[in-house]
Amino acid sequence: MHQTFNAAIELNLLHANQEGANHNRTHFDEWGITCLNLMSSPGAGKTVLLEKTLAALQDKLSMAVIEGDMTTELDADRLRQYNVPVIPINTGRSCHLDSKMVAGGIHTLKQEYDPETIDLVLVENVGNLVCPAEFEVGEHAKVALLSVTEGEDKPLKYPVMFQEADCLLISKIDLAPYLDIDLERIAQNVRQMNPDVKIIYVSAQTEVGLNLWFDWLLTQVQNNSLVTTT
Amino acid sequence: MHQTFNAAIELNLLHANQEGANHNRTHFDEWGITCLNLMSSPGAGKTVLLEKTLAALQDKLSMAVIEGDMTTELDADRLRQYNVPVIPINTGRSCHLDSKMVAGGIHTLKQEYDPETIDLVLVENVGNLVCPAEFEVGEHAKVALLSVTEGEDKPLKYPVMFQEADCLLISKIDLAPYLDIDLERIAQNVRQMNPDVKIIYVSAQTEVGLNLWFDWLLTQVQNNSLVTTT
Repeated sequence: MHQTFNAAIELNLLHANQEGANHNRTHFDEWGITCLNLMSSPGAGKTVLLEKTLAALQDKLSMAVIEGDMTTELDADRLRQYNVPVIPINTGRSCHLDSKMVAGGIHTLKQEYDPETIDLVLVENVGNLVCPAEFEVGEHAKVALLSVTEGEDKPLKYPVMFQEADCLLISKIDLAPYLDIDLERIAQNVRQMNPDVKIIYVSAQTEVGLNLWFDWLLTQVQNNSLVTTT
Repeated sequence: MHQTFNAAIELNLLHANQEGANHNRTHFDEWGITCLNLMSSPGAGKTVLLEKTLAALQDKLSMAVIEGDMTTELDADRLRQYNVPVIPINTGRSCHLDSKMVAGGIHTLKQEYDPETIDLVLVENVGNLVCPAEFEVGEHAKVALLSVTEGEDKPLKYPVMFQEADCLLISKIDLAPYLDIDLERIAQNVRQMNPDVKIIYVSAQTEVGLNLWFDWLLTQVQNNSLVTTT
């Protein structure tokens, strides 16, 4: 995150954000919604993964998207074609979604739709491999994407994102044959930061691995609904 | 950048950073050094570009690198093989270099080398397409890289970086044949944000475009030395 004038301001900032995140999660739990927070560098494939997910799971889940971008509704417009609620949030100059912004998104969602009918809210964060990992928004799990084009060393160089992730998608594996890269080495570096993370290799182009992602996602929704209804 | 508690804190933060950047630039000018600040998403190819640059221009320029990373000296170690001063800065949890960190790097450089003998300091920023663009470090020009794998829409979605850049390298063009991408569209989107930016298409693998980058860089050093010696 940005270094501010002193550690006290930073701690207050993170503390206030965490309180807001807990508040958001309480709402999600009341409504029986599972929330996932998708994070990655710009262009690692978050939006196309959401497109594939909305198309594949529309008969199994009632889904909504909270779509974070600094500017434009380009991604929101892509996702609206799947006939799900899409709530855009433009962060302006801010490099990540925070819990207050997502609270605003939840408020809009609640005004326009019945949240009790929604099973899953997918939050697409601003493309940034650093800052979003530090700002919880009320999600039940964090999903990080790392494109094979970004290189093997990224888990070591940007540790927080990989330490925080519950599920790590190694994306664009269709491009691996054209790169000087070792897919297994990427996974080893991820596990060095986070031994327990679920790792799935995917390609949105060839659709390799997408079924594994859908299975993981459906299990999250199922487990979460068991927790919140007991 | 991160949204803090109020706009006053943010303005103070940026103001203090700018003062530090001006101070750093004054030192660079006194020593006849040109400083370039390289910025991009993680994995867009900043380090390999520096490797190619150090190898190609070692007989023409005396160079040094200030190497920013959250953790590790992986990139610094790669660049040390080119027998130039490499000053690593680990930013910890911070998502960008600021002028105070770079001032520390300049201090180290001055202790270990004679800054009067250096023509060019290349600063490699933390991989992040958002925050580094807002924090000047004392550079004479900003260089941004955008990999073709990141997609055509990134200049529209992450405008600040593209507005701030003096030179924009569209990198990894050797991968373009395997992507559903229009190289000219990327450039159009960049120009929409910044009509005057110098755009160069490069591939570190095939070395296409690197001579244009070297020419641009040498012109910067030449023009800057003319300014600071008159």
